[in-house]
Amino acid sequence: MSKPAIGFCGLGAMGFGMATHLIKQGYPVTGFDVWQPTLDKFKAAGGVPSTSLSESAKDKDFYIVMVATAQQAQSALFPEDGIVNNLPKGATLLLCSTVPSEYAKSVEKELKEKGRDDIYFIDAPVSGGTFRAADGTLSIMAGASDPAIEKGKWLLDELSAPTKLFIVQSGIGAGSNMKMVHQVLAAIQILSVSEAFGFAARLGLEGKEVREAVIKSEGWSWMFENRSVRTLGEDYFPGASAVFIILKDTGIITSMARLLNFPTYLCTAAEQVYLSGVDRGWGPNDDAGLVRLWTSEPVSSINGNLSPEEKQAKLDLVVSLLVGIHFVAAAESIAFGKHVGLPLQQLYELCVEAAGGSAMFKSFGPKYISILEGKGEGESVQGPFDGLKKAVDEAQSIKCPLYLGGAALNLLVSSKASLEGLLALYTVR
Amino acid sequence: MSKPAIGFCGLGAMGFGMATHLIKQGYPVTGFDVWQPTLDKFKAAGGVPSTSLSESAKDKDFYIVMVATAQQAQSALFPEDGIVNNLPKGATLLLCSTVPSEYAKSVEKELKEKGRDDIYFIDAPVSGGTFRAADGTLSIMAGASDPAIEKGKWLLDELSAPTKLFIVQSGIGAGSNMKMVHQVLAAIQILSVSEAFGFAARLGLEGKEVREAVIKSEGWSWMFENRSVRTLGEDYFPGASAVFIILKDTGIITSMARLLNFPTYLCTAAEQVYLSGVDRGWGPNDDAGLVRLWTSEPVSSINGNLSPEEKQAKLDLVVSLLVGIHFVAAAESIAFGKHVGLPLQQLYELCVEAAGGSAMFKSFGPKYISILEGKGEGESVQGPFDGLKKAVDEAQSIKCPLYLGGAALNLLVSSKASLEGLLALYTVR
Repeated sequence: MSKPAIGFCGLGAMGFGMATHLIKQGYPVTGFDVWQPTLDKFKAAGGVPSTSLSESAKDKDFYIVMVATAQQAQSALFPEDGIVNNLPKGATLLLCSTVPSEYAKSVEKELKEKGRDDIYFIDAPVSGGTFRAADGTLSIMAGASDPAIEKGKWLLDELSAPTKLFIVQSGIGAGSNMKMVHQVLAAIQILSVSEAFGFAARLGLEGKEVREAVIKSEGWSWMFENRSVRTLGEDYFPGASAVFIILKDTGIITSMARLLNFPTYLCTAAEQVYLSGVDRGWGPNDDAGLVRLWTSEPVSSINGNLSPEEKQAKLDLVVSLLVGIHFVAAAESIAFGKHVGLPLQQLYELCVEAAGGSAMFKSFGPKYISILEGKGEGESVQGPFDGLKKAVDEAQSIKCPLYLGGAALNLLVSSKASLEGLLALYTVR
Repeated sequence: MSKPAIGFCGLGAMGFGMATHLIKQGYPVTGFDVWQPTLDKFKAAGGVPSTSLSESAKDKDFYIVMVATAQQAQSALFPEDGIVNNLPKGATLLLCSTVPSEYAKSVEKELKEKGRDDIYFIDAPVSGGTFRAADGTLSIMAGASDPAIEKGKWLLDELSAPTKLFIVQSGIGAGSNMKMVHQVLAAIQILSVSEAFGFAARLGLEGKEVREAVIKSEGWSWMFENRSVRTLGEDYFPGASAVFIILKDTGIITSMARLLNFPTYLCTAAEQVYLSGVDRGWGPNDDAGLVRLWTSEPVSSINGNLSPEEKQAKLDLVVSLLVGIHFVAAAESIAFGKHVGLPLQQLYELCVEAAGGSAMFKSFGPKYISILEGKGEGESVQGPFDGLKKAVDEAQSIKCPLYLGGAALNLLVSSKASLEGLLALYTVR
């Protein structure tokens, strides 16, 4: 039996990788995009390019939408000559974009209202970056009815790594909520990369040495390891992941949090910095380029002429900054997961191996979860607190802004660095 | 009897006004400064200019230090040929600079160690701006031993308005603590002026109309009324109060708060923005110029062509932003006052009529104090919460950063806008 044809809308950095991966696996893929050069590249990669949404959907039993925003998804799905109107009866539709869970629910509703609830709809946002997209080893958080999951499972398997497909219970919206909570870590940790390199630059530390020290330390995060390659190479134009993208995801988090009355202290701080980057015209540049808020000099050419002891002491400060931020980020994400009713163990398993992963999340995630589930003992964790305090002290004396470090320290002060106290700050009274 | 001679060190914007006011009252004043043009101006105003610290102190039974920082005070007071070594026996010494209370205490200690505890030392920081300095109507927060206060009272009276001299109990350091806590309001409310004008500019509102609407609203603050004149005139070079000055005071607040384990959520957020202004080279410019972080166009020439209804709705959003920020600022300052052991009623009376005053502080200050003194009932205040939420929603949709508004909203979310809940966030667990 020949492999089924797949329709695909949105051949951006992630979508292009996913669609061409499916082509390599032998599926005929018809790809829609509005950008002709991308369509040409897609054709060269063996795809069927299309400039018509209706053509891309006609006779496709399987269809994937991977556009940038809910607005784009809406205008691709529901116009007269859009995707939904042209899908065959009983088709399976995957929405892989990062959208508010409310939007995913509204698609389900609109399908019903338009008499198209024959379509098996799956809310299936992804994480993992462009390499894993092109490799078919993404993390996917999928929520849908059981019959829809049954129909679409093989396709989700094709796109994800064996241990990284997470079927989230409670239907449409749950996948998007899972992604949103994962992005709490991303939103904070993407900025923490630049804040750490910026602080390091002001301390006179060379970028490559900073990268090496952080990667083997408790300050490690997936984002740091990933982004720092571009930081060192000043590979921002356009780089691989635009400020606009993480700003959009951060906006989903903070607007949903406002709706649900949940405080997102660090995400909110990060959002303002992303907006200030956009104000400088850096929206389309790689998010690693935000380090330019701290230094106009390339971090790889900084040389403070430090003695080995001075250098080590300063590297320790940079690591402490990251440890402190990520320690709080883990609490912010897990508490938000609890607030929106996600299964916390599954959230942990997903995040720890995905782009939101960090050494702090790995160590403290299970402890936070125990406390939120009423099982854990209160514990005071002095290390991250004392370390962050030293870093913020030093930054203040050299007039270096620490948007996340400053905010995280206040939360640790207020909670006296107790895990329970920290989570209490995220518990609406 | 002729009026006593006074020595004066530090003829900056504030010091010059204070010193020349004393000259007008008929006192012979010898003024030291390092900046020759200032000395020339001082001479023209009837003062005795001096380029020698020891000369300025010799035979002066009364001496006032009004330099910018504790570091400057230290290097003026204690060198061999400095002030202390050259003051006559039993002189009265006023330190009017804004310094950490720890520094004021260290001066007391060093006077004793150097065998100069014959000097009547008064820790007497001031507030009120350059006009009131030149007018002899400053607010002064004075802490000292009873005999020192007795000696210096007439001089404090000369410099302050009749109802604005606050003798703070518990000696040296108490005046500086009072000033520090007052500056919590200043640090936040100076930035809120620019954040409000920046938001308004992005909404298409003309600056003059914004000023008129805010001044008659609950969003009023002393800082807004004062700074907005310079915002409208783009009078930033150098203007009247440099970013460096409020950054220094904010640094005193946050470093002292770290030492004392108190969280200063909004001051910390403001500090990072002041630092980012310094990074842009705006440190010596007037703090009202921080609005340039939001708009390069002069706010007075913005014209969004709005209908009267649209304009009113948008002005309401700007007022709501300020109301929300100032509501939280009042809690942050009063809770800090409690934390450092200040008499809260006196703190209230001082701030409400000084540069830290705001409509929100005036209305809610007494309620916060009642709660902190164990007398008040919990109360939920929905207005500032709902209004701020709308402002932050709108700002997000037009991609306008709100550093203070975003942080304040999270605190209101976390406290469910209850006064008690908000104060609890400032109570170290």
